[in-house]
Amino acid sequence: MSRIITFIGKAGIGQTTSAIATAKLFSQQGKQVLYVTHNPNFNAESLLQTPLTHIPQVVATNLQAVQLQATTMLDQSWEEAKKILSLYIPLPEKEEIYSGELILLPGFDSLLSFNAMRQYYQSGEYDIIIYDGRGDLETLRMLGIPGMLNWYFQRFGKALEGFNIQKIADSIGGPIASAFISANVDTEKLQQSLEKIRSWIAEGMAVVGDTNKLTTYLVTSSEPGAIAETKWLWGSAQQISLKINGVLAYQCQETDVITLEQTFAPLSVSPIPAIKEHDWHPLLNALPDFHDNHRSPLPLKIDRETRQLFVFLPGFTKKQVKLTQYGKEITVEAGEQRRNIALPPDLQKLSIKAGKFEEPYLIIAFE
Amino acid sequence: MSRIITFIGKAGIGQTTSAIATAKLFSQQGKQVLYVTHNPNFNAESLLQTPLTHIPQVVATNLQAVQLQATTMLDQSWEEAKKILSLYIPLPEKEEIYSGELILLPGFDSLLSFNAMRQYYQSGEYDIIIYDGRGDLETLRMLGIPGMLNWYFQRFGKALEGFNIQKIADSIGGPIASAFISANVDTEKLQQSLEKIRSWIAEGMAVVGDTNKLTTYLVTSSEPGAIAETKWLWGSAQQISLKINGVLAYQCQETDVITLEQTFAPLSVSPIPAIKEHDWHPLLNALPDFHDNHRSPLPLKIDRETRQLFVFLPGFTKKQVKLTQYGKEITVEAGEQRRNIALPPDLQKLSIKAGKFEEPYLIIAFE
Repeated sequence: MSRIITFIGKAGIGQTTSAIATAKLFSQQGKQVLYVTHNPNFNAESLLQTPLTHIPQVVATNLQAVQLQATTMLDQSWEEAKKILSLYIPLPEKEEIYSGELILLPGFDSLLSFNAMRQYYQSGEYDIIIYDGRGDLETLRMLGIPGMLNWYFQRFGKALEGFNIQKIADSIGGPIASAFISANVDTEKLQQSLEKIRSWIAEGMAVVGDTNKLTTYLVTSSEPGAIAETKWLWGSAQQISLKINGVLAYQCQETDVITLEQTFAPLSVSPIPAIKEHDWHPLLNALPDFHDNHRSPLPLKIDRETRQLFVFLPGFTKKQVKLTQYGKEITVEAGEQRRNIALPPDLQKLSIKAGKFEEPYLIIAFE
Repeated sequence: MSRIITFIGKAGIGQTTSAIATAKLFSQQGKQVLYVTHNPNFNAESLLQTPLTHIPQVVATNLQAVQLQATTMLDQSWEEAKKILSLYIPLPEKEEIYSGELILLPGFDSLLSFNAMRQYYQSGEYDIIIYDGRGDLETLRMLGIPGMLNWYFQRFGKALEGFNIQKIADSIGGPIASAFISANVDTEKLQQSLEKIRSWIAEGMAVVGDTNKLTTYLVTSSEPGAIAETKWLWGSAQQISLKINGVLAYQCQETDVITLEQTFAPLSVSPIPAIKEHDWHPLLNALPDFHDNHRSPLPLKIDRETRQLFVFLPGFTKKQVKLTQYGKEITVEAGEQRRNIALPPDLQKLSIKAGKFEEPYLIIAFE
C-alpha cells in the first residue's frame, strides 16, 4: 500500500527542502520513493542536483522524481476522456478537437495533478509518495476534491441512481425522452462508469481521512507572517477533514520553537536546520517520526450524551466562522471554504439550540 | 478610465511590499486607488496597519483596500448566475440550491477574482487598481481568461452565431429539435447574452494587451531560484500576450542589479529597498516611472517581407518550446501553457517552411 506525505505552509519557506529530506530518508531506509513536484521548481532541481523530467526518473537509489507538467497531463487525460465520452456520444469525425488545441483553464493544474497523484498512488509501484505542491489553499482545494465530489453525488446523485432511460421515457413520455432514447445512451454502461467514479471517490476520501495514508505536516519559519498564514492553513485543512501530524520549524532558534509549540499546541514541533554544503545528515536526523500521529485532534467529534458536535477550527476567530443549517446537514464556513457536514440520523431530526465558538472549537448543541 | 497595476514573481519576495508602495505613491498624487489582495495576506495587514475587509474600505486618503474572499464572491456570483439562467431554464422551486451549499472547486478562486476585478475596473470608481495576487502561473491563467474565452468562441462559436431554434427545427426536424422548442428557449435573449459576453471578452483582451491599461512588473530578489522562476514567468506571460514593463529588484545590492539587468534585458531594473520602521519614503522614491513602457518587447511580430513570425519567448530553452500547425492557426507550447495563434489571412494559405528557436525568439518561416 502506498503512502503519501505532503507539506502545507507559506510559499518559499522550507517546504521543498523538507520534502526532499523526507524523500531521502525513506529511500535510504530501502523504501521505493517517488518525489512529485510542479513546474517551475528550480529549488528542487538545485537540491537534487539534476534536471527534473515530466515522467518519473531515477535520481538516486530507491528514489524517483517527477515534475508534473500541465500540458503533458492534459494530453493524457484528454485521450482518456475521449475514450469514456465515445461510449455515449458519437464524436464527430470532422470537427475533432485535438488535445494540442486545448487551452488550460484556471484550476486545471489542480485537477490534472490530482488525477496524476491518484494514478501514482493506485499503481502500487511506490511505498512512499512525497507530494511537494504549493502547500497553500489551492493544495487544500485539490485534496478536497474527493469530499467535494462525494457531496455533489449525495446532493444530486438521487437523480442518477435509478437513472434508467427506458423508465423515464415510459413515465414522462414526450419529445425530450424520445430524444434521449434516439441518442442511444446505454444505461448499463452509464451505471458502470458512475460506479467506478463512486469507488474512486470513496477511496480518495479514505486516503484524505487517514493519516497513515496521507500524512501532512505544517512547515513554518519564525517570521510572524509565516506563522499566521500557516496557522490559518491548519484551520483550513480541517475544513476538508485533513488531520495534521505535526509542525516543522524551518531555520528556527530554540526560543522560536517554544513560541511555535504554544501557537500550534497540541501538535509537536520539530526544528529543521537549513542545508549546508550538500550535507543532508543534520536534516535527516531532525525529521520527526512520521508514524506518530497521536497528537493530531479529530476534525469532528460528536458527544451523543450531551448532543453536542465539536468542529475543530484552530487559527480562526469567532468572526471568521459562520454556521448554517440546511435540512439534514449543516454548513460551516471558515477559511475561504465551505464544509457541508451530513448529520448522523439521530441528530437530523433535532434543531440547533446553540452554536458557539470557543477557540479552537465550534460547539454546536442540539435541542 | 481605470488602470490596473500588478506584480509577477516568486511567492514571498517583495510583491506585497511593492504593491502597497505603488498604492501609496498614486494615492499621494491624488489618484483614487484601490488595493486588491487575497485571503490570507497577513503581510498586507501588517504593512497597512489595519485589518482588511471583504468589501473596499478607506485605509488612507484616496486609498481603499479590499481582501477578496472566495465564499463572499461565490454568493454574489451565484445570485447573478441564477438571474441569467432563469431566463432560459425554469429553475425548480423545490430543489433550489442555496449558494451557501455550494462548495468551492479548484480554479474558482481565479474565476471569482477575475470577475471581481472586472467589476472594479468597469465601475469607473478608481483611477488606479493595484492587484496584489499570487503573481504566479495561476495569476497568468487568470489574466489569460479573456484570450481563452475568445479562442473558444472563435473555435466553436460558428454553431452559436446563427443559432436560431426555429431554423434548426425546420431544417432538421425530429425529436431533439422539438424538445428544444418545447423548452421555450428564446433565441433573441440568447443572442443578446452572447453579445454581452463577446463585448466583455473584447474589452478584457484590450485590457490585457495594453500596458497603459494593465501594467505588469516582475519582482525578484538576487536569490538564484527567485531569478530563475521570475524569468520563467516572464516567458509564460508572453503566452497570454502580456507585456512586462520592467523589473523590481527587491533588497538587492548594486552588483546584483547589474546581473539582473543582463538577465532581463532589454527591461529596466529598479532596485527597491526593504521597509524600515514604517518609513515608506525610500521605497516610494525608488519606484519606476509607471508610464515608461518603451522597453518591453512585443509578444508577437510579423515580418511580411520575409514571411516570418517572431514569437517572443524569454526564459525558455529550445527543448521547452513546441510548435504545431493546425489549419489556420499555429499552437505554441511553452511554460505550462498553450497559445493558439490565428494566422493573418495572407499567411494562412502558406505552410511552415521552418521553425527555429533563437533565444529569445521562436522564428517561424513560411514558404
